[in-house]
Amino acid sequence: MRELAGRHVWIDGSLEPAEGRHLSAFDRGFQLGDGVFETLRARAGHPTELAEHLARLRRSAGGLDIPLGPSLEEDLTLGIAQLLAAERLDGPDGDASIRITVSRGVATSRGLLPAGPTDPTIVVQAWPVQPPPAGHLERGLHLVASSVRRDPASPLGALKTTSRADYVFARLEARRAGADDALFLTIDGRISEATSANVFLVRSTADGTELATPALDSAILPGTTRTWILGWAGAAGLRPSEGSLVPADLAAADEAFLCSSVAGILPVTMFNGTPIGSGRPGPWTARAREAREAFIRGTDRHAP
Amino acid sequence: MRELAGRHVWIDGSLEPAEGRHLSAFDRGFQLGDGVFETLRARAGHPTELAEHLARLRRSAGGLDIPLGPSLEEDLTLGIAQLLAAERLDGPDGDASIRITVSRGVATSRGLLPAGPTDPTIVVQAWPVQPPPAGHLERGLHLVASSVRRDPASPLGALKTTSRADYVFARLEARRAGADDALFLTIDGRISEATSANVFLVRSTADGTELATPALDSAILPGTTRTWILGWAGAAGLRPSEGSLVPADLAAADEAFLCSSVAGILPVTMFNGTPIGSGRPGPWTARAREAREAFIRGTDRHAP
Repeated sequence: MRELAGRHVWIDGSLEPAEGRHLSAFDRGFQLGDGVFETLRARAGHPTELAEHLARLRRSAGGLDIPLGPSLEEDLTLGIAQLLAAERLDGPDGDASIRITVSRGVATSRGLLPAGPTDPTIVVQAWPVQPPPAGHLERGLHLVASSVRRDPASPLGALKTTSRADYVFARLEARRAGADDALFLTIDGRISEATSANVFLVRSTADGTELATPALDSAILPGTTRTWILGWAGAAGLRPSEGSLVPADLAAADEAFLCSSVAGILPVTMFNGTPIGSGRPGPWTARAREAREAFIRGTDRHAP
Repeated sequence: MRELAGRHVWIDGSLEPAEGRHLSAFDRGFQLGDGVFETLRARAGHPTELAEHLARLRRSAGGLDIPLGPSLEEDLTLGIAQLLAAERLDGPDGDASIRITVSRGVATSRGLLPAGPTDPTIVVQAWPVQPPPAGHLERGLHLVASSVRRDPASPLGALKTTSRADYVFARLEARRAGADDALFLTIDGRISEATSANVFLVRSTADGTELATPALDSAILPGTTRTWILGWAGAAGLRPSEGSLVPADLAAADEAFLCSSVAGILPVTMFNGTPIGSGRPGPWTARAREAREAFIRGTDRHAP
């Protein structure tokens, strides 16, 4: 617990020391993964795409019938500001990753079915953003397919729940294989997403250079960075495309990259032991990463 | 929280008041559903099939690479005894449901991948066993198919993780449909299990009366009660059978029932609005329930 000393966490309306006890063991978040979450980035105290993240948080909670009060957005906006200030991550050079977790709250009775109304538990945490691990940007990420498959018909597919054991398992699987992350495939063999990022391919076609990503029916979470990239692509002279992609498309691509709110855009150069394109990070990936970082810094706040 | 007043919970080696705070918000059980659990029943202070439940707990934890110390079984045996005594559920008439929850513990860093070794969080809770809701035994349970489908190839299928959002969702879905529970089907359309119980069918064949249940490759959790029933069936003159079952088999059965450690054996009389058999609880279901309750009471401890 040493790393938590001196730090803070925001819970149900107030700042508390990060060390210590905050939650009941009867919280359904702990018992049943009965909760939802968001992660986002804040540069210089400005949370990036906060409205989009809060909208998705509300959609995820709604999908599980977790009731959220009307002041949630206002409360969380204030909570994030208080936490960033307490963590001294709100200065001009501040670069924070923020996690918002909302569980259904404490249940006094046992069982899967919430017996009655509960007060949701609302937690905000913040960490300084770490640069990508040494060499990641230069050599690119190596991915392997997870043995966990995704069902595009799942009614929970687009909900960002805290029931994340599948994703933890996939990351452990990737580590055992010596890879940096795992890529989920759907039960019908299409590319879905990485454990906490959407995936994009760059490929040359007769109509120009295409920036392709799995469509929303590919058991993906509709990432806020994914949406941003689709908008940026057109402005940058790439032809954005959402559709069905299979592992062979990855092998045949010129470039591939992952995108997520906190890590931004990271090159992918290997899948299941096969190099992608030249096997080295490509120029479009670098351009996309630069554009996204500029957007997050606010030097190009209105792009694309 | 009123219902928790005066009660206790056992956490990491000691009894604590059930009201109040027990856990860090940084616990991966809360953050990621990164944990495993067991529920079991204790009559007169004797936990039923404790060894089997602890073995499955260890297998589930192993599947997620959650390290458990060698004294876990001894610690939990003692913890359960202490908790049952504190809750006054260990008397001759004591009838308790017990839940053991083990999470990977507190993570100081963010992300899906555990950055380093953690101390698992170990929680034991106990509740008095409630009789089945009024009329359930007389009219039988009504089930509906969940829109969540199960993948028989999932590497997590046999792990009882705390990532239970799919199951909570299915129970909410059943409640909205006016049903008592949901039945999961596999992605290839076979019967899997209910949200917290295995399912059995009784059907007449040329070779006598068959007691059929989905095989282990049906995306089921291998229930301890399921195993007990398969043993009991032979002794009772039924032909036990594990295989692939589809919804049409349920509609065509003479009887159907669910089984789980805490609720025991409960009749099922309706699936997706269609009556099963006569639409009333059947005699084999009643016989199985009686035999199981006798086993749990210890009057027939060595059965089958």
